[in-house]
Amino acid sequence: MSVSRRQILASGAALAIGGLSSTTSVEAQAGNVPLDVPGSMHEQGRPVLSPAYGLPSKFEKDVVRRIREPRATDTEAFSVTPLQNLHGIITPNGLVFERHHAGVPEIAPDQHRLLIHGLVERPLILTMDDLLRFPAVTRIHFLECSGNSSTEWKKSGYHSVQRTHGLLSCCEWTGVPLSTILGEVGLKPDAKWVLAEGADAAAMTRSVPIEKALDDALIVYAQNGEMLRPEQGYPVRLFLPGFEGNMSVKWLRRLKVGDRPWHTREETSRYTNLLANGKAYQFAFEMDVKSVVTFPNADRSFKAPGFYEISGIAWSGRGHVTRVDVSVDGGATWHRASLQEPVLDKCLTRFRLPFNWQGQPLEIQSRAYDDKGWMQPTRSSLIAARGINPRYHFNAIQGWKVAVDGGLTNASA
Amino acid sequence: MSVSRRQILASGAALAIGGLSSTTSVEAQAGNVPLDVPGSMHEQGRPVLSPAYGLPSKFEKDVVRRIREPRATDTEAFSVTPLQNLHGIITPNGLVFERHHAGVPEIAPDQHRLLIHGLVERPLILTMDDLLRFPAVTRIHFLECSGNSSTEWKKSGYHSVQRTHGLLSCCEWTGVPLSTILGEVGLKPDAKWVLAEGADAAAMTRSVPIEKALDDALIVYAQNGEMLRPEQGYPVRLFLPGFEGNMSVKWLRRLKVGDRPWHTREETSRYTNLLANGKAYQFAFEMDVKSVVTFPNADRSFKAPGFYEISGIAWSGRGHVTRVDVSVDGGATWHRASLQEPVLDKCLTRFRLPFNWQGQPLEIQSRAYDDKGWMQPTRSSLIAARGINPRYHFNAIQGWKVAVDGGLTNASA
Repeated sequence: MSVSRRQILASGAALAIGGLSSTTSVEAQAGNVPLDVPGSMHEQGRPVLSPAYGLPSKFEKDVVRRIREPRATDTEAFSVTPLQNLHGIITPNGLVFERHHAGVPEIAPDQHRLLIHGLVERPLILTMDDLLRFPAVTRIHFLECSGNSSTEWKKSGYHSVQRTHGLLSCCEWTGVPLSTILGEVGLKPDAKWVLAEGADAAAMTRSVPIEKALDDALIVYAQNGEMLRPEQGYPVRLFLPGFEGNMSVKWLRRLKVGDRPWHTREETSRYTNLLANGKAYQFAFEMDVKSVVTFPNADRSFKAPGFYEISGIAWSGRGHVTRVDVSVDGGATWHRASLQEPVLDKCLTRFRLPFNWQGQPLEIQSRAYDDKGWMQPTRSSLIAARGINPRYHFNAIQGWKVAVDGGLTNASA
Repeated sequence: MSVSRRQILASGAALAIGGLSSTTSVEAQAGNVPLDVPGSMHEQGRPVLSPAYGLPSKFEKDVVRRIREPRATDTEAFSVTPLQNLHGIITPNGLVFERHHAGVPEIAPDQHRLLIHGLVERPLILTMDDLLRFPAVTRIHFLECSGNSSTEWKKSGYHSVQRTHGLLSCCEWTGVPLSTILGEVGLKPDAKWVLAEGADAAAMTRSVPIEKALDDALIVYAQNGEMLRPEQGYPVRLFLPGFEGNMSVKWLRRLKVGDRPWHTREETSRYTNLLANGKAYQFAFEMDVKSVVTFPNADRSFKAPGFYEISGIAWSGRGHVTRVDVSVDGGATWHRASLQEPVLDKCLTRFRLPFNWQGQPLEIQSRAYDDKGWMQPTRSSLIAARGINPRYHFNAIQGWKVAVDGGLTNASA
């Protein structure tokens, strides 16, 4: 690949570290020398509808969700999204991370009901047919488990970004604003919280403040165009943009309006952070501004000196990303990355930085900012503020070390 | 479902046709009467990673691509996207329409090569590893076969929007600007056209004007986050935003720069329109402004009088959609639909219109406008301009008749 310095420099905010050199394994050939004609041009390929619902190439068979770490059961468990293999911001439905507390229930949509009751004027039971008649909206939003990167509070030693950051996905969601449904049932004056309950065997329940319920909360039935996947709450889930994923209750069967939070199991024994001073930080809903470099990664990194594009994703549960900086020297100096448009609220943003690697060891980091004035902290400052007891809401800067042979490892391992 | 007139009217540009009435089959229930506890809450569900690459619910098994109409072979054939089942604008990869001329080749990415030659200073052969090192961009764009809705030139009698309009999908695409690649090889002064050739057994070839190649053309390797599906050109395809789908050559193996078009088979015997006056309209690249209502549809329509949301998609190969009007009386009167943000260039736009059906027969139509001043034509004006010989670029207003029982049929059948 003959990449000239002039051309790469013209393409954007290049890191001008040394000269560029030709690194391709296939040399340019002169004139009209033909390529070998591949076998694929000698015979008819697979027919249409093989299959009718399409699947990835067999050459991509290793691009799958994986268990992050061993668990006591395989139903109270989670799987992680292969961020190292993804491009852009959309996560295809087959690769959206899973977090289940009692496995994935099988629910026939024509049997499913959603009850809205409690401090309301007109309690309602809705069928899926009913829900599909309401005015709908479509939004692209990330979904992140509050336990994402929890491995990093205590130095996991995981080198794969799938394991450190893969409890994170981003989809196009379609559904009904919860505010519309609450408008139909009519809130009583002391309505302050909404309990959401799932139809799984964990009866997953979380308390949602009424301000969020009336703001951008959605009752969602579609994901990337098609109906929700079973693992994502088929046939219907709550979706709270920017809030910890656990609150976007899947297989939603009941919304109860009340005047105070319920302090459910998932709000006391879990999803609450024990701080170093012995106090607990409860009801931390918004996912903090965060980013991570996804290329290079432990599976695919620099092979030889020359031009590469460092790439990653950034997000904030409070609004939209305004800026991402990248360092290749462990945070000593920073370079501003370009952000792929459109940059949307509470949505992944892809960032990219051209880079010319000369074969030296690196520590690559990224640092995101959002429109509410937040900046992603260093690991040491996050731990100074919260200690190392917490399991949730780890959003510190992630470092990746690149060795002289291109091998990539977790810098905090 | 108790939808009050006040609330629905407050939600947007309502069609105020008569009063709203309760239509739900499930009545609201008083107080805290519990729902039946479903079986899904009595036992653990499926474990995580069942499967590792996720699939739709078994209850969605009929949401698949289908053959539009019988063909002589199943490799020179096409399948259509189930638009009637989709929400938002993203088409999930498993449902993206297919159009193959010699089936789907199986290509090992590490064996694949892309040659760029002809009127260039420095011919290149690129591996997939090389391509993945170039600066990338990500865009959400529709892809439409120029034969989409060709059934309607002569009144197909198809009532399914999957059959009339399903050669249409919309994905997030990631790849390298073709202009970057052409910058690397260096164009000679008389470079005016680029020949793109696929590695399928049809050696699919099309001529692309240099202006498009240097504008927004992409060399694409990813689709909705993951690597391209085999049916969509794995491991790499050309992508020409807004142009007829056939030109976005799949399984791309060769780009040859020349000083004139090649007049390949797909530019003479096919993909060229014979007009009524005996002349042919060749090199009609841009897909015209167009829209179609996808709800109600032949599979799912109005069941009983009451509130519904009419919904559909609009697009233009020349830019972005600025306005969509909907008629329920066969084009006599029009109502402005709301457009779902973000409205992007050369991308599907979801439109919606609240509607209160009183059980009367309807003819529902939609009419789109774009930012270049084009308006979707009526079928009669399109045929007056071009006759009924053409097979390609049918973009007329589509009508759907709704009977008093809610049954939906093609209005031009």
